Amino acid sequence: MSKGRLEAFSDGVFAIAITLLVLDLTVPKGQPDGGLWAALGREWPSYFAYLVSFLVIGIMWVNHHTVFEKVRQVDRAVLFANLALLLFTSVIPFPTRLVAEYLTAAGDARVAMAVYSAVMTACAVCYGTLWLVITRDAGILHVHLDRAAERAALRRFGFGNLVYLATVGLSFLNPVATLAVHGAIAVYYCFDQLRTEGTGSAPDHPG
Amino acid sequence: MSKGRLEAFSDGVFAIAITLLVLDLTVPKGQPDGGLWAALGREWPSYFAYLVSFLVIGIMWVNHHTVFEKVRQVDRAVLFANLALLLFTSVIPFPTRLVAEYLTAAGDARVAMAVYSAVMTACAVCYGTLWLVITRDAGILHVHLDRAAERAALRRFGFGNLVYLATVGLSFLNPVATLAVHGAIAVYYCFDQLRTEGTGSAPDHPG
Amino acid sequence: MSKGRLEAFSDGVFAIAITLLVLDLTVPKGQPDGGLWAALGREWPSYFAYLVSFLVIGIMWVNHHTVFEKVRQVDRAVLFANLALLLFTSVIPFPTRLVAEYLTAAGDARVAMAVYSAVMTACAVCYGTLWLVITRDAGILHVHLDRAAERAALRRFGFGNLVYLATVGLSFLNPVATLAVHGAIAVYYCFDQLRTEGTGSAPDHPG
Amino acid sequence: MSKGRLEAFSDGVFAIAITLLVLDLTVPKGQPDGGLWAALGREWPSYFAYLVSFLVIGIMWVNHHTVFEKVRQVDRAVLFANLALLLFTSVIPFPTRLVAEYLTAAGDARVAMAVYSAVMTACAVCYGTLWLVITRDAGILHVHLDRAAERAALRRFGFGNLVYLATVGLSFLNPVATLAVHGAIAVYYCFDQLRTEGTGSAPDHPG
Repeated sequence: MSKGRLEAFSDGVFAIAITLLVLDLTVPKGQPDGGLWAALGREWPSYFAYLVSFLVIGIMWVNHHTVFEKVRQVDRAVLFANLALLLFTSVIPFPTRLVAEYLTAAGDARVAMAVYSAVMTACAVCYGTLWLVITRDAGILHVHLDRAAERAALRRFGFGNLVYLATVGLSFLNPVATLAVHGAIAVYYCFDQLRTEGTGSAPDHPG
Repeated sequence: MSKGRLEAFSDGVFAIAITLLVLDLTVPKGQPDGGLWAALGREWPSYFAYLVSFLVIGIMWVNHHTVFEKVRQVDRAVLFANLALLLFTSVIPFPTRLVAEYLTAAGDARVAMAVYSAVMTACAVCYGTLWLVITRDAGILHVHLDRAAERAALRRFGFGNLVYLATVGLSFLNPVATLAVHGAIAVYYCFDQLRTEGTGSAPDHPG
Repeated sequence: MSKGRLEAFSDGVFAIAITLLVLDLTVPKGQPDGGLWAALGREWPSYFAYLVSFLVIGIMWVNHHTVFEKVRQVDRAVLFANLALLLFTSVIPFPTRLVAEYLTAAGDARVAMAVYSAVMTACAVCYGTLWLVITRDAGILHVHLDRAAERAALRRFGFGNLVYLATVGLSFLNPVATLAVHGAIAVYYCFDQLRTEGTGSAPDHPG
Repeated sequence: MSKGRLEAFSDGVFAIAITLLVLDLTVPKGQPDGGLWAALGREWPSYFAYLVSFLVIGIMWVNHHTVFEKVRQVDRAVLFANLALLLFTSVIPFPTRLVAEYLTAAGDARVAMAVYSAVMTACAVCYGTLWLVITRDAGILHVHLDRAAERAALRRFGFGNLVYLATVGLSFLNPVATLAVHGAIAVYYCFDQLRTEGTGSAPDHPG
């Protein structure tokens, strides 16, 4: 099976999931006249959650391409691993809505944030698994990965998973800070992943 | 008419339908503080229905590509058959929402599950019809299908249709089990279809 | 400007508009147990409107491609005419929702259906305009259209516009029949357009 | 990194954002029979906001392509600048909904319109930034931009940003006129940008 279709379908899911986030930004209704400014201000958790989830999905899309640029063809196992990743990616608007609704609730903010962090952890685990599945068979790749680079990537995935797992715990201590941490991780991955993965792979890219 | 457009449009519909499923995951509102965890737990039918419908659409997308990899060009009949398939595919978020809402209702769970199963049966019938329409004219295909393989595929489609029809009946006996059966069928098709269809067709694929 | 982008963007809008229709199928809430079957039955205008709008958008997508297969490159006027067509196409889920909600209301069914018919008329006018804009300059086309074929197409567009305009009037006489007429027109175009446009253009198609 | 993916993903986000606007057109519910016509009439701010936002996103999509037709490959900085643009583009349905809801409210119309104008200003700033990032490195471009053309484009971006900033102020004076101004700016950019950018770039375009 060629990778073209997998990429097109994945692109579609990423693009739709990132754009559906806007539906979680709710317009305050039935305000007494003049109260809209304050009402919008009270919705700050929506904007914060929107921004972080946008960054997370955006960076996941970037890394998805960085990974598949190295891939020549896909088999059934890659397909499954990718579908699992898309499952958790396309679910992200749900915990985003949950956080937008409950981030300012005294106790439930922790539950909402823990669910958000758990979904992010699941995404990270799926990413690591996808990488493992892709690199288990040299025939799938069209660039040569030396053993050291492969292990470094795996270590980074493993470390990332631990960080994400830690955010689940952090959610119960400080939900707002946890959301900020998710944003920070997305920005970090943006810089780090691209620098490391980018070396040498761009010229090989056919498309 | 070339198949490229049909595939692009179908990809779009599959990707959007699978991503719209997340809108059916509703955030519980107006919980007494501390009640969010339990409220989320009560929404388990939503998550279950989401997971099954995601698998079903995902595998339908995979099989759609497996089928069209064998196709060289499309005519009016293929176009109609494909549009009918897309009609029922894009409707899937509706019975998913129905099941999410009514799976725990005593009597109505059966009705909801029967509607869900009926839509899945319609998808299966459309798939079989699409296959019949494609294989009726050898000029449409760009790989050679021997008669035995063609008949085996048709038998499998026929058998699949019977199984789907049976889930409509099963819905009235045990709605929750029926949803699980739909998930199991999706996983089964994932393995079986890919193995059978995959032989030989991958190298011919131009894209 | 190359036509590839215009097609990709248009494909996206068509695919999303056709899939968003499912959001108009509302799940009945708060039924007394056992009442779901009847409640679903009362929603028949939703299913009817969904089916007709799906057919209309589906056939518009098919014809969009049939038209652009003949096009080599696009200029600013084509771009504008196409954007106007997309504007009315992407608005279709709104009158569909309107009809789904009001088709069984005594007096308002006429208003809802007239709005629906007006949007369809606008789509038809945009199609005819797009065709005029494309055929006004022979350099835009990459197939040779003889004068007779061009005029025949124009006559058909003109006649189609008149039929659509008539449905606006018909909406005030019999709203349910008007919706059926829209479905019938879509099916008619499906057969007629494809037959006429299909001759000779398929072999020239590069993609 | 090749630009193909960036374009496909951006196309998806633009197409989805422009099509999601239709969800902001709400169907009036629970009208006394015969009152639908008047109820629809009262929703005119929805239609007005829909039209303007459709034009704005449509023209942003056109210009996005005009810019990237000149680009040969993208680097990390371009990626970031593009992601920022997509962030504000995909958020447009939210201020559109806000304006649709509050344009006829005495005092809050100003707040709603100011938010709308601020989002548009952010889009314009992101566009200018993207242009700066792209033109800072001649290796990224595959057409030769002479210094004068580059500066003229930059001046135009700068002037556009000032105009957009002015609409934020105008929102507090006359919200309805401000919405009309946004529509007018979109139509203006449609004509102006295409004429200027179009010279010479079309023949170089590979895709």
